[in-house]
Amino acid sequence: MGYPDLTVNGAGHLLLGGADALDLAAEYGTPLYVLDEELVRARMGLYAAAMREYFPAGSRPLYASKALCCKELCRWAGQEGLGLDVVSAGELYTTLAAGADPESLCFHGNAKTEDAVRYAVESGVGLIAADGTQELERIDRVAAALGVRQKVLLRVTPDIDPHTFKAVNTGVVDVKFGVPIPTGQALEAAKLALGLEHISLEGFHCHIGSQVFDAGPFRLEAEVMAAFLGQVRRETGFIARTLNLGGGFAVAYTPEDPRPDLAGMLRDTGRRLGELFAGMEYPAPAILLEPGRSIVGDAGTTLYTVQNVKSVPGGSTYVALDGGMTDNPRYALYGARYAAAVADRAGQPKDAAVTLAGCCCESGDLIGENVPLQRPRAGDTVAVFVTGAYNYSMASNYNRVPRPPIAAVRGGTGRLIVRRETPEDLIRYDL
Amino acid sequence: MGYPDLTVNGAGHLLLGGADALDLAAEYGTPLYVLDEELVRARMGLYAAAMREYFPAGSRPLYASKALCCKELCRWAGQEGLGLDVVSAGELYTTLAAGADPESLCFHGNAKTEDAVRYAVESGVGLIAADGTQELERIDRVAAALGVRQKVLLRVTPDIDPHTFKAVNTGVVDVKFGVPIPTGQALEAAKLALGLEHISLEGFHCHIGSQVFDAGPFRLEAEVMAAFLGQVRRETGFIARTLNLGGGFAVAYTPEDPRPDLAGMLRDTGRRLGELFAGMEYPAPAILLEPGRSIVGDAGTTLYTVQNVKSVPGGSTYVALDGGMTDNPRYALYGARYAAAVADRAGQPKDAAVTLAGCCCESGDLIGENVPLQRPRAGDTVAVFVTGAYNYSMASNYNRVPRPPIAAVRGGTGRLIVRRETPEDLIRYDL
Repeated sequence: MGYPDLTVNGAGHLLLGGADALDLAAEYGTPLYVLDEELVRARMGLYAAAMREYFPAGSRPLYASKALCCKELCRWAGQEGLGLDVVSAGELYTTLAAGADPESLCFHGNAKTEDAVRYAVESGVGLIAADGTQELERIDRVAAALGVRQKVLLRVTPDIDPHTFKAVNTGVVDVKFGVPIPTGQALEAAKLALGLEHISLEGFHCHIGSQVFDAGPFRLEAEVMAAFLGQVRRETGFIARTLNLGGGFAVAYTPEDPRPDLAGMLRDTGRRLGELFAGMEYPAPAILLEPGRSIVGDAGTTLYTVQNVKSVPGGSTYVALDGGMTDNPRYALYGARYAAAVADRAGQPKDAAVTLAGCCCESGDLIGENVPLQRPRAGDTVAVFVTGAYNYSMASNYNRVPRPPIAAVRGGTGRLIVRRETPEDLIRYDL
Repeated sequence: MGYPDLTVNGAGHLLLGGADALDLAAEYGTPLYVLDEELVRARMGLYAAAMREYFPAGSRPLYASKALCCKELCRWAGQEGLGLDVVSAGELYTTLAAGADPESLCFHGNAKTEDAVRYAVESGVGLIAADGTQELERIDRVAAALGVRQKVLLRVTPDIDPHTFKAVNTGVVDVKFGVPIPTGQALEAAKLALGLEHISLEGFHCHIGSQVFDAGPFRLEAEVMAAFLGQVRRETGFIARTLNLGGGFAVAYTPEDPRPDLAGMLRDTGRRLGELFAGMEYPAPAILLEPGRSIVGDAGTTLYTVQNVKSVPGGSTYVALDGGMTDNPRYALYGARYAAAVADRAGQPKDAAVTLAGCCCESGDLIGENVPLQRPRAGDTVAVFVTGAYNYSMASNYNRVPRPPIAAVRGGTGRLIVRRETPEDLIRYDL
């Protein structure tokens, strides 16, 4: 299951969640996001089970909804035993509209407005991750006005470079998020939080980065955070009840990427946490993790229809698609690499290397360059893989291109979970 | 008028179109796009007047609506005598909803679907710019089915590097747009177009790039295109009635950028065209130009409210705003530089250099780094300048952040021309 374990039916067509990709394209139109519901639910279940097995009592994964936020995904997370990580009032609104238990939510963000904080406190959000001293005071003020005491985590910056597995004591704390541990600011902020009457400090939050393929950085994160918890206990007597270690679990985007062993990473991280807290004689806090990309990333595939194919002698072959940076801005933003196939002939060898060009009036609107592909023709359906995370959620109406729908596929049957934008939608805000 | 000619009122507050920026922020909330209507109309009028004065009869600017597409901008363009360049069915739908004359439209795009072509032909669009032979045949087929003959331009690639002012005969034709002239493909495509029964080839379209500060590249473009027109006349006898030279006129984003002399660029380009066609004894075609950024860019300012200010010892000062890459993705996409000011104290010296951080849960969500600014405090209103182009049009709902409204200001008075998205709008498509 999941990319790159693709299957093809007797007609040679790509199968997605057991459904013929060409049938999905015909039924729902293109561009179309397709999401393998069984794979998403299996990944959610994997996290929930591993955290029950290997982590302290009360530990739980929170689905990082920013990866793909819509009501149906929030429902699946709840059904599979996950809480939700929301990073804005809009994500909070979506999860509540989907019927999420507010207690299961952790509300993040580096720039929460007073209105957003009030909305979260009034909604009974389980945890708010305060990004610094100004936010601690803002939450306290709002909670006081509402006559409640709000549970908070303090977001700290642990100075770990996940791609070298080192606590670097250099520039990794120079980011917009969190209160740095190495400068002593995190300890001071914890003391402030403990003194605020309408805040109940539950513990701490940190996040080391994205696309982590190995347990090493998470074990190091556990070590740095355990040491910080020990320091806070020595200085203040405070024992954390919750430690949120954020997300960052990788997904393989192309056949060249390693395939992460999620279960193994969770087991190793959980065991290391157990050793650390036992060694410190520290009552093990409940651990929260915030996977997003690793749950939905490789469950998503985008289907496009080829409009034109152009070969420049001595140059590239351009395959002009009916979507592009409007539905997937990650090549334009990060140079992210994607694998693709012609769904009509997915079982055949990839005998071309093409530039997948989007339909926007901008030269940089590409999905990829030098992408191996079956030789394409106008009218073909092209599948771009591993588009479940940070595609729909980052989509725009640039060039007034409507955002595509999302079809969830389960047992060979598709159904829309997000509808396509219409022309009327595009001018809805114009006065 | 226009950035950097900023003015401050007696209270020391920034004025935008004669209105106090803090009053606008209070009335409409933040983030807020503010557009100086008088400046936009003046720029539109400058293009219309210069093209009447310096270009052949029938010449006209087409506002490139992709820079900022909403119904009110389309209305202004029509009122100021401009046609419209639309690059998608959605932009076409917007212009028609705004009451544009279909004959004044040129429909572009490198990947027009058959549905989009049918919509354009049925709507009576004046010109369709065909991006290649497949599109020529598609337009012919659609026009045949509808029993009409559609006027088209053929988009060609003239192999000019606008930033070296050279016809380079190298990789500049290796782009997703157009049919290359140097390879002979453009001539062959012109012959194809002349043989299609339901197409009336009116002429050609080309575009050399963005942010051109000098007439030099446009004069070179005129020379290359005149030579190509001469070649087509020799080979086929065809005389072009229309030549669309695209856009690319620059705007100054920061005080360090040169300030383009638009009127001078237009005069010099127009004169060169006159010389060229006289010298060739070629009946001068009507010239179309497609300015977008240079009309709306520096007429736009985005207002944000500072939520938090964080200084990392030995590192940066982070100013957390209530918007960011969701309303302005150009730093994330291109590393684009912007100038800013604290609107509350806009007349005071800029005694800090800060990182303007957006509110998205992503480290790269920044508006700028090392941006000179009056020392900011939480609650201040920060103005980011020259955001009129490719900001609202590229905005997303990443993190489910609602897209801001646009307030047009004229004679000190504001009015909304695009309303703010609501939480209900954010879940409108979720099933």
